[in-house]
Amino acid sequence: MNSINKSIAESLCRIVGEDFVIEDLDKKQSYLYDQVMETVRPAANENSIVVKPSCTDEISKIMRLANDNAVPVVVRGGGTGLSGGAIPVRESIVMSMERLNNILEVDRANMVAVLEPGVTLADIIEEMDNHQGIWFPAHPGDEGAHIGGMAATNAGGSRAVKHGVMRKHIQGMEVVLANGEVVNLGGKLVKDNAGYNLMNLIIGSDGTLAVITKVILRLYPEEKYSGTIIASFESLTDASAACLEIIASGSVPLAVEYQDRDLWRGTARMVGRKWQLEKGDADIMIIVSEPDEEKFYSTCRRIYEVCKKNKACEQYFAGKKSEQADLLKIRSQMYEFSRQRTSHAFDMAVPVGQIAAFLGDLRKLFAKYDTTTNITAHVADGNIHNDILLINGKTAPYVEELKTEMYALCFSYGGTITGEHGVGKLRRKDLTKQKSETELALMRGIKHTFDPKGILNPDTLLESTCLV
Amino acid sequence: MNSINKSIAESLCRIVGEDFVIEDLDKKQSYLYDQVMETVRPAANENSIVVKPSCTDEISKIMRLANDNAVPVVVRGGGTGLSGGAIPVRESIVMSMERLNNILEVDRANMVAVLEPGVTLADIIEEMDNHQGIWFPAHPGDEGAHIGGMAATNAGGSRAVKHGVMRKHIQGMEVVLANGEVVNLGGKLVKDNAGYNLMNLIIGSDGTLAVITKVILRLYPEEKYSGTIIASFESLTDASAACLEIIASGSVPLAVEYQDRDLWRGTARMVGRKWQLEKGDADIMIIVSEPDEEKFYSTCRRIYEVCKKNKACEQYFAGKKSEQADLLKIRSQMYEFSRQRTSHAFDMAVPVGQIAAFLGDLRKLFAKYDTTTNITAHVADGNIHNDILLINGKTAPYVEELKTEMYALCFSYGGTITGEHGVGKLRRKDLTKQKSETELALMRGIKHTFDPKGILNPDTLLESTCLV
Repeated sequence: MNSINKSIAESLCRIVGEDFVIEDLDKKQSYLYDQVMETVRPAANENSIVVKPSCTDEISKIMRLANDNAVPVVVRGGGTGLSGGAIPVRESIVMSMERLNNILEVDRANMVAVLEPGVTLADIIEEMDNHQGIWFPAHPGDEGAHIGGMAATNAGGSRAVKHGVMRKHIQGMEVVLANGEVVNLGGKLVKDNAGYNLMNLIIGSDGTLAVITKVILRLYPEEKYSGTIIASFESLTDASAACLEIIASGSVPLAVEYQDRDLWRGTARMVGRKWQLEKGDADIMIIVSEPDEEKFYSTCRRIYEVCKKNKACEQYFAGKKSEQADLLKIRSQMYEFSRQRTSHAFDMAVPVGQIAAFLGDLRKLFAKYDTTTNITAHVADGNIHNDILLINGKTAPYVEELKTEMYALCFSYGGTITGEHGVGKLRRKDLTKQKSETELALMRGIKHTFDPKGILNPDTLLESTCLV
Repeated sequence: MNSINKSIAESLCRIVGEDFVIEDLDKKQSYLYDQVMETVRPAANENSIVVKPSCTDEISKIMRLANDNAVPVVVRGGGTGLSGGAIPVRESIVMSMERLNNILEVDRANMVAVLEPGVTLADIIEEMDNHQGIWFPAHPGDEGAHIGGMAATNAGGSRAVKHGVMRKHIQGMEVVLANGEVVNLGGKLVKDNAGYNLMNLIIGSDGTLAVITKVILRLYPEEKYSGTIIASFESLTDASAACLEIIASGSVPLAVEYQDRDLWRGTARMVGRKWQLEKGDADIMIIVSEPDEEKFYSTCRRIYEVCKKNKACEQYFAGKKSEQADLLKIRSQMYEFSRQRTSHAFDMAVPVGQIAAFLGDLRKLFAKYDTTTNITAHVADGNIHNDILLINGKTAPYVEELKTEMYALCFSYGGTITGEHGVGKLRRKDLTKQKSETELALMRGIKHTFDPKGILNPDTLLESTCLV
């Protein structure tokens, strides 16, 4: 493998113009990391070079150059990932998609938007304000996320309960392969059964199979009636039973969030609010949204009744926008509240019917290590974010052992190491515990088919990706 | 490549028992074809041997035997496919899944069923009657279809408007690879972001990548309130505009079916019913189903209003079960009515917003050849089934030329050669017109990764699949 020599830097300048190639360390610093926690993040290779193409043609030329010279390419979206996927651990071309930020089309008849990959979630939300009656419901978290990154990582988020993860929302893509060739996958059509579904391979591939240069995103009827219910139960078992019954009733909420009460309370205090629930021991926040008023109220009513039937201790309903915003703030700032005491953060998922039992066993496991764990969960999706805590500000000595036991427990429930954050650079070794060697060999074969030299985001998702 | 010699037949008998190996031509005749039209179906190789395993372990052994000896294996489900996927065109082991027909589990908490691949759609519908409040909404057509085949072909059907094609309904699979290894993909969990999504590759792969030996199928809240609206419009443009507005309103019907009026009328006459619509020129049938009564009536009301606003000439509502069944019969028997005059049947799909324009151009194209085409369409999905007619009982001389022009027109609308029936053995050459050589090369690479000797359903989906 060549390092990035002078001649490659010059070629990059010729392709995109020298204003869009960054070699100065100070200036490129902000392109070297994503939002993975510092306690676990791999070190970036600071000899990497940042390039900012403006179009597919330039990306194609950059890929040809990189492929010919066997130089790694790490595609960078909004840098909001939590698995280190965007960190160049080898000397790489970091290809930032920030200049490909045009909303090319909003096609109302087909209910799709055609987007360049650098369009942010915030851009999409803002654009939707100009189009009455339609919206994009998914919300993986940070609104600085690029749509290209959201697709490449198959991002999830709390609203996946009703609307599913990114995989469900992508109808088409333009991609550039490792060798610079351009391929169009899917399209504006909703039904296409012609050949192997390559698009679904690229969704969730963490930038290891192709560079996404265009996304055709599905839009939905706007759900302008919304409300938030918070409810407490004696136990997570009761809370989870209520969630299962709500889903089974067909009155599916936008989101159902569980957090330990001290997280709700602590975050509320941090943002200057009060957490109202006091009785019971397991608190959930249910966000309801519907396109029409009649359905909205019938859904809220049913959720209230199901919670009551499942022994809810308290229930509050927030209908006003400001009240809802207050509650959402408590949920969305939780990460800020808890991060200072967190050593390792996780993203396991189990079948939704098993979540209460799994979390019970998980707490017992942590108790065995004489520690506790913060738990938040997209509880109606079976997706759990729990932490291993810092001990006196330091990583605990049992971290690896506890993690191994945690994952073994998760697998015994038919679970996965990652429900939504992806494997990235953090969980490559863990993936080998979840997947059989046979399955991993198939994945390596696919990687080799798309990227024979292994230049696209090496050291990501799979353990061994040969760089010729 | 070896032919199927005595020693292979004996080995098969040892694996499954001689009662479950069929060599006699009379007895194996019904295993050699699917429901593809005789006018276009490829000839089966009658030296093929039929084997009926009873479990994954036997399938694994059969695959090892076949792989070691480079003998093609054609997996056979219900034989209801329309693209020749199940026809053994080479001397093959035809592996019928009819004995793997157990419903292993209905897991209400997780809203999934765990099924052996030979469970039929009829079995699923019957089983759901035992579980109040849940159902499986998809209905690709023939209820003799096996769930394994429905998954392998990513089957669609009229109800995909509301509930999507099979890809959306499959959460997990057990598969046996060409070399006999067993792999589990997905599971009961709804969110899983660990590595490349191999399951979505196998869905829609026409039995060319792996043998599906178990399916974890998603279940849904039952929609027990249903009704059928038939409405006529002056033109398909008006009818399509109404469909688009209905979808955009969020009041999504289960199905929206268009047929040429002479097809509605002719089929009605054939089954001893009367087609009520007389005014206008474009008739659609809208099936509404909802889990609660309130929502059901509000959806029906909205659809009625949207149709009226879009200049519907007539509208009838069937609420009684018997009236609905009568209408459904007219729709479902259409294929029987039209098949005697059909030479070639198609399955194109275009973006749903373009369907009226596309069908207008399609009719003009047929007029150029001095002929007409029967058109039926899943109109809210953009999926069209049209025919080239027999001329005096014979295939017309212009068939290939017309087909080429038809597909070119379809591609100019961003369409596909197959919305739901799949490529199978019928559309391999056509696929090379739709997909770039780059994309086809990726598909061949994937095929090679899963099945290096090319034994799984050769001559299907891709043009060249080497049999070592």
